[in-house]
Amino acid sequence: MNEIKRKSADQLNYVALAGGVGGAKLAHGLAALLPPEQLTIVVNTGDDMQYMGLQVCPDVDTVLYTLSGWANTQSGWGVAGDTFNNLGALAALDVDHWFRIGDKDLATHMLRTLLLESGLTLTQVTAELARRMGIAHPILPMSDAPYPTLLETNQGVLDFQVYFVKNHCEPVIKRIFWNDGKEGQASPQVMLALNEADCVILCPSNPFVSIDPILSLKGVRDLLRERFCMALSPIIQGKALKGPAAKMFSELGVVPSAHAVADYYKDFVSLFFVDELDQAEMAAIAELDMAVEAIPSIMPTLKERKQTASLMLDSFFQHFTGVST
Amino acid sequence: MNEIKRKSADQLNYVALAGGVGGAKLAHGLAALLPPEQLTIVVNTGDDMQYMGLQVCPDVDTVLYTLSGWANTQSGWGVAGDTFNNLGALAALDVDHWFRIGDKDLATHMLRTLLLESGLTLTQVTAELARRMGIAHPILPMSDAPYPTLLETNQGVLDFQVYFVKNHCEPVIKRIFWNDGKEGQASPQVMLALNEADCVILCPSNPFVSIDPILSLKGVRDLLRERFCMALSPIIQGKALKGPAAKMFSELGVVPSAHAVADYYKDFVSLFFVDELDQAEMAAIAELDMAVEAIPSIMPTLKERKQTASLMLDSFFQHFTGVST
Repeated sequence: MNEIKRKSADQLNYVALAGGVGGAKLAHGLAALLPPEQLTIVVNTGDDMQYMGLQVCPDVDTVLYTLSGWANTQSGWGVAGDTFNNLGALAALDVDHWFRIGDKDLATHMLRTLLLESGLTLTQVTAELARRMGIAHPILPMSDAPYPTLLETNQGVLDFQVYFVKNHCEPVIKRIFWNDGKEGQASPQVMLALNEADCVILCPSNPFVSIDPILSLKGVRDLLRERFCMALSPIIQGKALKGPAAKMFSELGVVPSAHAVADYYKDFVSLFFVDELDQAEMAAIAELDMAVEAIPSIMPTLKERKQTASLMLDSFFQHFTGVST
Repeated sequence: MNEIKRKSADQLNYVALAGGVGGAKLAHGLAALLPPEQLTIVVNTGDDMQYMGLQVCPDVDTVLYTLSGWANTQSGWGVAGDTFNNLGALAALDVDHWFRIGDKDLATHMLRTLLLESGLTLTQVTAELARRMGIAHPILPMSDAPYPTLLETNQGVLDFQVYFVKNHCEPVIKRIFWNDGKEGQASPQVMLALNEADCVILCPSNPFVSIDPILSLKGVRDLLRERFCMALSPIIQGKALKGPAAKMFSELGVVPSAHAVADYYKDFVSLFFVDELDQAEMAAIAELDMAVEAIPSIMPTLKERKQTASLMLDSFFQHFTGVST
């Protein structure tokens, strides 16, 4: 931490690891507080899929849409005010249509696919999409190569979106793995950002299917053990605000709680945040050999996102420099 | 014609050559009168284009949409009741958006592209699209290979859609050619249909950019000289109902008229139909060594399309068997 102490606040580099909606919300708050030079957002691509020949990156898009203001904040996915006339026409053409892509949302996937086919990497294409959406902060897909999340369930091995969207997270999970068990590579840009990070922030995303895909890439978990890492629990009062995280904990034999999340990250996280409703869990989390604080973590609008992000950044700075920002 | 005379009416094979809106209207009328076993519709693909990585076949789609009832009959292109939210999102992403594809229309191009990428030919893909739209008649793209129409104009050589949509047909045409001057191949299915045709019907489509592409494919024009061919003029009272046909005649040094169309086809057409408003041109057309008749040819709804088609089929049958259907 000596290196951090020698830096002033505006010299610190932050990397946020994000998955879907919860992660995008905290990333939004962080981006409102930190300039692009200080914040890089690394996003899960384990749930990417092909849709009608188009490359869809649901978590990357949730971050892009949230930071650009395009997001449909009510549904938690897709573009605000979107329509589904394309989907209706596909259905009329007997195309399987359980995966719902709106007419506006589709434009992102069309442009992404066109740019990928022109030879750009997913990292380059994501940067171009972000630029066109007016986003200044670097948003990095975790990898340029496909690295699909696979779920071994009581209904067989399922692709993530088949489990998540088609089957409404109903199958019981036995095991989660990636890329048929073959190790994946983070992009060079992700490895560089992590190497230069003074603080890595694990956003309140699903540990198993949003954060774990990033952690499971070659060398990432080892690298995080050498960085200062802090995390915000996606579990509040034993439940996930959105998505199947709590259900997954139960199916994997762990009672879902903020403590269970902290325990899951204990080998590399030094500072853990629980929601203010979960102060009762703080003592047990402190026993995992990490600092723990309680903050408001429900973030419907930019105001709360900035507040949560600000409390986390302040806490990091105080804990490890002894100076308040 | 002896072969025709030996056949009964329900044994005759018809092939309609069609381009855009006018051609699709007559094809619609023909399809309402003739069973799928007797009618094959061959469609121009010279104005096909790539749009955001998707394969768009404007004339094939006009025929598909017209025969399936999907067509937007007011605009003359695209799908009825379509919306343009995808286009709006593409524009927001700084994508050039002069070519307007609606949200529903897009579904056709997405499915076409997906099926083409799976290894099917354009002929197979078009048959599959037609099947999914509930169309029983064979609709054949003229070729499985790209064969782009190019226009040499006062603004340089332009792709068809750049001339037609982006530049609103404003450039002055000097010459029309295809595929950089390299001869194209009709599909085997088209050659088979033409070989088996007792009567080839040139629909009221633009002679230069809808019918000529088909005629310019290897062996097609020679084959048509051996078949019985009849044509309906796309020019009425010196004007085209839609599109740049009359303007093209003028720029190529010919006064636009039904007679000019008949003259253009005189080497292989035996029976020519003018609109009833153009009876004054009949005598001059008869001097081109072809039979000529005047019929109503404005076909806004299926009722008029069937009437026009019926008059043409009756006339063919009477002329060359002496028997009325």
